[in-house]
Amino acid sequence: MEFFSLIDIGGTVAFAVSGTLAGLRKRLDLFGLVVIAFAPAIGGGTIRDVLIGHLPVRWITDSKVIILIVSVAILTILLRNQIEKLDKTLTFFDSLGLGFFTIRGIQEGLLVNMDIISCTILGTVTACFGGVLRDILLNEIPTLFRKEIYATACILGSLAYFSLRKVGFSEELVDFVTISVIFGIRILAIKKNISLPRI
Amino acid sequence: MEFFSLIDIGGTVAFAVSGTLAGLRKRLDLFGLVVIAFAPAIGGGTIRDVLIGHLPVRWITDSKVIILIVSVAILTILLRNQIEKLDKTLTFFDSLGLGFFTIRGIQEGLLVNMDIISCTILGTVTACFGGVLRDILLNEIPTLFRKEIYATACILGSLAYFSLRKVGFSEELVDFVTISVIFGIRILAIKKNISLPRI
Amino acid sequence: MEFFSLIDIGGTVAFAVSGTLAGLRKRLDLFGLVVIAFAPAIGGGTIRDVLIGHLPVRWITDSKVIILIVSVAILTILLRNQIEKLDKTLTFFDSLGLGFFTIRGIQEGLLVNMDIISCTILGTVTACFGGVLRDILLNEIPTLFRKEIYATACILGSLAYFSLRKVGFSEELVDFVTISVIFGIRILAIKKNISLPRI
Repeated sequence: MEFFSLIDIGGTVAFAVSGTLAGLRKRLDLFGLVVIAFAPAIGGGTIRDVLIGHLPVRWITDSKVIILIVSVAILTILLRNQIEKLDKTLTFFDSLGLGFFTIRGIQEGLLVNMDIISCTILGTVTACFGGVLRDILLNEIPTLFRKEIYATACILGSLAYFSLRKVGFSEELVDFVTISVIFGIRILAIKKNISLPRI
Repeated sequence: MEFFSLIDIGGTVAFAVSGTLAGLRKRLDLFGLVVIAFAPAIGGGTIRDVLIGHLPVRWITDSKVIILIVSVAILTILLRNQIEKLDKTLTFFDSLGLGFFTIRGIQEGLLVNMDIISCTILGTVTACFGGVLRDILLNEIPTLFRKEIYATACILGSLAYFSLRKVGFSEELVDFVTISVIFGIRILAIKKNISLPRI
Repeated sequence: MEFFSLIDIGGTVAFAVSGTLAGLRKRLDLFGLVVIAFAPAIGGGTIRDVLIGHLPVRWITDSKVIILIVSVAILTILLRNQIEKLDKTLTFFDSLGLGFFTIRGIQEGLLVNMDIISCTILGTVTACFGGVLRDILLNEIPTLFRKEIYATACILGSLAYFSLRKVGFSEELVDFVTISVIFGIRILAIKKNISLPRI
């Protein structure tokens, strides 16, 4: 539980930082920077909640998350020159967060008895589509659709999740391996600069 | 029923192909091409389902549709050189699909006792706004807002639907005439290169 | 009540005019101009309704609003050369509408027992995110994120709302002061050309 809370918070922070930095590059004003921090941090979960009808969406009544994201946005703006040096730390939490959010999406699907395909889509949407929202708000073609192994890691992680579950492993072990798979693929792709083929 | 299933599948395939081809033009990667195939194929129905609160949205639990769209995307990528020659076949199914999806939207509105205006909007959204989603994801001003008789065909079709219903025609006949009206207007507009005035 | 109806209608009209004018600048066709009139007029309320799960969204069954917006779009197109002279009248109603829509969003949040933070977000989303939708549909980075005191006025207005409520003022007075605060800040920002800092 504690381990998960840490990943949840770390992932949310890393996602919010990514949004703020992208906004700084586009020269948004203060309000715009705060909003664009929210997009990657809660956008994927919002789209998932809307698709399955889990309304009100979670974050709207979760003042802790709201305050966390606003604080991260402001800190990122203040420390923008220092934060570039945190590049590796951010990638670390971003990749962990990717795994964590994928599992969160899968779990939401399982709660309403969805099958493997639906759960895999929900996991991938939760982890990746906040970034799509960020890119659309910044008037760019989503990075997710053009380069980097990102969604692919979530899909493979989801397959690992359901394979291990079927074998009968404990919940904790399944979660741990799934996050490891997603984290590993993502980090490997970054290090080796691997991306999906363009046609 | 069988006739309708055929139109439904044909329309979905044509819409998915259009998405994939648009993605190829924008040089998306493999994952992006699959996602962008979904946008026109299920985007309009998704927006409709969210607006009326019919959640979870239909397609998320419909693995047949999901597998169909993924397969179409992959086939379109593999056969991309051949598929341009299918131009007329695609336009044929795209225009039939336009009529079919309009009726689907109207029916969803009638199920929750909406009036003509609301149903016409739902029909048009179902048929046309998947394309809007596709264009936004590809960072373009939606074609729907700039050229081509597309939404106009759906709106006129919807008026035909409610007029004929009022006269007392059978359900089957109303559906058939509505699809014919939309199909006819759309094909005519393409052949004669007619579009709405720009001011 | 009558005062509020007037602001509601005036605000909706001003927002719809702003959408149509933005669409004219991008050379949309007739259908596109009507759709883009809807975006600022009902977009914020739609996003709010979806976030809190108040579905179907209000406007879809409100034919009076639909007819109003379509009429405004058509009149704006016909009178496009005269309407620029109405600049001050439009700004007046736009700023009043900003206050009114903020209160509407807050009230929706209070109805489902949300706290100050959630209500402030819902108020700001209701008043401002229709404009975000308009800009995305027109393929631009939302103005809201780049310049002008707009959301800031709504946030400060919301704080005024909850402060005055706590003090124990009557509902009418709270509403009146809140709208005055938002209206005043917005008009002042326009006159003095004040905007949030960019970093």
